[in-house]
Amino acid sequence: MPKTYNQLAGQRLHRIEALSDGVFSIAMTLLVLDIRVPVSNAIQEEMDLFTALVGITPKLLSYLLSFMTLGIFWVGHSTQFDYIRRSDRHLTWLSIFFLMFVSILPFTTAFLSAYIEFKLAIAIYWFNIFALGVLIYLHWSYAYKNNYLDENLQHAHFIDKAIRKRVFIAQCLYAGGALLCLINNYLSIFVIILIQLNYALAFFFRPKLPINKEEVNRK
Amino acid sequence: MPKTYNQLAGQRLHRIEALSDGVFSIAMTLLVLDIRVPVSNAIQEEMDLFTALVGITPKLLSYLLSFMTLGIFWVGHSTQFDYIRRSDRHLTWLSIFFLMFVSILPFTTAFLSAYIEFKLAIAIYWFNIFALGVLIYLHWSYAYKNNYLDENLQHAHFIDKAIRKRVFIAQCLYAGGALLCLINNYLSIFVIILIQLNYALAFFFRPKLPINKEEVNRK
Amino acid sequence: MPKTYNQLAGQRLHRIEALSDGVFSIAMTLLVLDIRVPVSNAIQEEMDLFTALVGITPKLLSYLLSFMTLGIFWVGHSTQFDYIRRSDRHLTWLSIFFLMFVSILPFTTAFLSAYIEFKLAIAIYWFNIFALGVLIYLHWSYAYKNNYLDENLQHAHFIDKAIRKRVFIAQCLYAGGALLCLINNYLSIFVIILIQLNYALAFFFRPKLPINKEEVNRK
Amino acid sequence: MPKTYNQLAGQRLHRIEALSDGVFSIAMTLLVLDIRVPVSNAIQEEMDLFTALVGITPKLLSYLLSFMTLGIFWVGHSTQFDYIRRSDRHLTWLSIFFLMFVSILPFTTAFLSAYIEFKLAIAIYWFNIFALGVLIYLHWSYAYKNNYLDENLQHAHFIDKAIRKRVFIAQCLYAGGALLCLINNYLSIFVIILIQLNYALAFFFRPKLPINKEEVNRK
Repeated sequence: MPKTYNQLAGQRLHRIEALSDGVFSIAMTLLVLDIRVPVSNAIQEEMDLFTALVGITPKLLSYLLSFMTLGIFWVGHSTQFDYIRRSDRHLTWLSIFFLMFVSILPFTTAFLSAYIEFKLAIAIYWFNIFALGVLIYLHWSYAYKNNYLDENLQHAHFIDKAIRKRVFIAQCLYAGGALLCLINNYLSIFVIILIQLNYALAFFFRPKLPINKEEVNRK
Repeated sequence: MPKTYNQLAGQRLHRIEALSDGVFSIAMTLLVLDIRVPVSNAIQEEMDLFTALVGITPKLLSYLLSFMTLGIFWVGHSTQFDYIRRSDRHLTWLSIFFLMFVSILPFTTAFLSAYIEFKLAIAIYWFNIFALGVLIYLHWSYAYKNNYLDENLQHAHFIDKAIRKRVFIAQCLYAGGALLCLINNYLSIFVIILIQLNYALAFFFRPKLPINKEEVNRK
Repeated sequence: MPKTYNQLAGQRLHRIEALSDGVFSIAMTLLVLDIRVPVSNAIQEEMDLFTALVGITPKLLSYLLSFMTLGIFWVGHSTQFDYIRRSDRHLTWLSIFFLMFVSILPFTTAFLSAYIEFKLAIAIYWFNIFALGVLIYLHWSYAYKNNYLDENLQHAHFIDKAIRKRVFIAQCLYAGGALLCLINNYLSIFVIILIQLNYALAFFFRPKLPINKEEVNRK
Repeated sequence: MPKTYNQLAGQRLHRIEALSDGVFSIAMTLLVLDIRVPVSNAIQEEMDLFTALVGITPKLLSYLLSFMTLGIFWVGHSTQFDYIRRSDRHLTWLSIFFLMFVSILPFTTAFLSAYIEFKLAIAIYWFNIFALGVLIYLHWSYAYKNNYLDENLQHAHFIDKAIRKRVFIAQCLYAGGALLCLINNYLSIFVIILIQLNYALAFFFRPKLPINKEEVNRK
């Protein structure tokens, strides 16, 4: 018999999933607001416009960078929900704090692209990614520890290990990339983009074939 | 046999839930638009940028404050739908008016962070929270009174009591915190943030274990 | 056997419903971007801030007006989907064109609040509402004519009549309200707000009790 | 037994569908932010306001153009999911990269409407549409090749052919329309709008009647 409000709250998975999809899709789209159409009376010919367009390339690169960051964490967050079947208020709030750092990413991205030669800008961008990593890790640990996973899930232990390992390795790579700013800022950003591209494209991954029936039905 | 349009309208729960998730996720993300990247020719060194960043701390604090406010009311609103199974046009419109005050929160937040030393700014921010509280209370009362809850729900009376008590106590605390502005504005905001943190983190709440089968299946 | 792409496209209802909820929730939230925090060096005391706040009352009124407009059309659009069970590409595109006028409403609202004393501003605002009415009417007619309603639906004829009548009467009232601008613009807006309030609050509607089982199960 | 994170990730269709609906609905609504209310002290009479409104017609046209573009690709993307029943991380990332070009469309649209007489602006707008076409084509090919379609789907081969043919013909038409800018920019945009209108309105398409039961049940 539930006695307190806290025992009632935050138990429905599909709502926090919908809220997450909403926040991610808006953060992804708000990134584009930072790319402004160059306005200048000096633009008279095709070549002038081309030069102006080249001038906003850093904005386009940081758009690409942050879109991939959001894509990677969205895949990570939604993959966890593939296995989670129950929730409570704490798990819900871990997602909400995670979304807080998702929704602030357009700001840290704009900050980075405005001050791309400052180590502080890279440190703050890295901290944003780090906070996302910590919260997504806690989210999974909490769900796993409290037996909120699908009870019929086989190999839960292996899935647990794969998810933890993924977050850990990714965060090590990001930290390493960010530290490269001690040598050179552009090198640091270049390496971080490479890490993102690797996670986005996953060159060495091949789809598993064939898929057996049970797996399909579970979905 | 339905005779009028009003008897037909607003009966599907999943649509108002989807609209709510949409409005909440956008309001949460729009908050970040108020945090602008500091732009100044005076920023030449790392230390200058750090100083500029410290200068936008009030913006970051009010972002944190309002994100938690939205998180708390989102959890409150979605928890109600955990028990509500039917709807009518009035219940739908109570949600729409609730969302009207959700979507205006980025404005009252910006207003507060621009005029943080004015009692009027705190009064208006408090009124926004108060209106959210009144509407979420009416939403639940209306659903409960009209038997729109899940018919198989056990302990409906206790759930009703827990939800009402929660809104009532929270609103008393917010009103108390807001009244502290008569002494000092920063004290008032500090106490409101403490109240929010308490509701977000719920330190003394432990997940209930074990969960019995029926509860799981209901979801 | 489907032969052309047009026979394949636009058949899933839940996607167009999700797109609609998305567009409506963003349009509702974007309205608030038109309300800017008053900024002035002249604001030194509480009374100055109060005066500044009074100065943005027209913005707050047009926010209220347009939020209700969107709420009314959202309820109308989602109520139709309560009875529609099939779709094709034409029905989907009727919704997309409907959403086009939903998403332009923040513009026509800002236009109205900037030029509230111009008859042209009221004419354009009215045209936006009129276009929404025409498209929502066509949406229902098309679905009804092509037998896309729930086959088990009883009293389909009465529901059809109620929905058509509602759109027709509402549009007559809006047109009447808009025409009042020939006498006075503020009178016109005041009457339109009254019409909206009437549809939002529906004073004379009482929830139907009891609800029989079949209706509940259908949802 | 899944061994790596990549085998776990991106398997849930409803999440990528929800993210897509979110990104599309926001991109559609952000388009309107480019249409600004004309502000001028010279606007004193109805006729002045009318002139100012005529002045923003290009903005309204490019709003219409891009809303239809987004509508067309949204219908295309969601139609694919009508037949896809399984997913993996690659398919999910193809959608994410597709969404990257959806969410940048408000920028390329603003760029086009600001520099409507420059061939470079048309080239970039065309490239955006081209990238959307390539990614939507790859998305379908990948799903088809890896047997991710509904296993009970009849005529899968015909559906495959219809979807590929549609993307191919549409891209040929767009490329042709864009190339017309070598003659005249306005002609080029006019022809692209005609192509869009053709796909949006599909004049020669008639709804298929009657629909057999199985098709209905599948949805």
